[in-house]
Amino acid sequence: MKDLQPYYAVIFTSKHAQEEVEAYSEMAQLMEDLASEQEGFLGMDSARNEIGITVSYWASLEAITRWKQHAEHQIAQQKGRNDWYRWYHVRICKVEREYDFNR
Amino acid sequence: MKDLQPYYAVIFTSKHAQEEVEAYSEMAQLMEDLASEQEGFLGMDSARNEIGITVSYWASLEAITRWKQHAEHQIAQQKGRNDWYRWYHVRICKVEREYDFNR
Repeated sequence: MKDLQPYYAVIFTSKHAQEEVEAYSEMAQLMEDLASEQEGFLGMDSARNEIGITVSYWASLEAITRWKQHAEHQIAQQKGRNDWYRWYHVRICKVEREYDFNR
Repeated sequence: MKDLQPYYAVIFTSKHAQEEVEAYSEMAQLMEDLASEQEGFLGMDSARNEIGITVSYWASLEAITRWKQHAEHQIAQQKGRNDWYRWYHVRICKVEREYDFNR
């Protein structure tokens, strides 16, 4: 994504309130698919053990705001707060520099 | 960390070249302990499935540079490139805003 700078990262860290349920996995996949169709979406990485970390990358702060306010995403966020998450933390960041290693 | 703004996040995403080995786990723990003793270190989150994501938080870009150049960390980085990682990606980011949910 080096040629696209400046761009933004949304770091979403979370702890589930209970064991992962199928409804959550389905919604997470749906939201990933939906996010990837949004204007300004650049990519997404996810991993989960004790906590989950999802980092999504966006071309602008406006694209991040539009995704936060997207109607279906709003429903997912509400369901997350009601049912799935014990806590979550969202950090919106500007990528200042980056580098890679590939073997 | 809201009262400490502005601060920085280092997003480290990686793919292992092989199944996780004990030597890697030991080194990762050692580096986490060592990082947490550095001036300007604010916290760290990690998760791993197919890929690993580690996000560390720092008070300044200078603190990030010092940690990158730390002698023991340099050895770990070299070992990572030689033995452990198929690829990794480092993004240095400024946290622009954040919010939480807690039940």
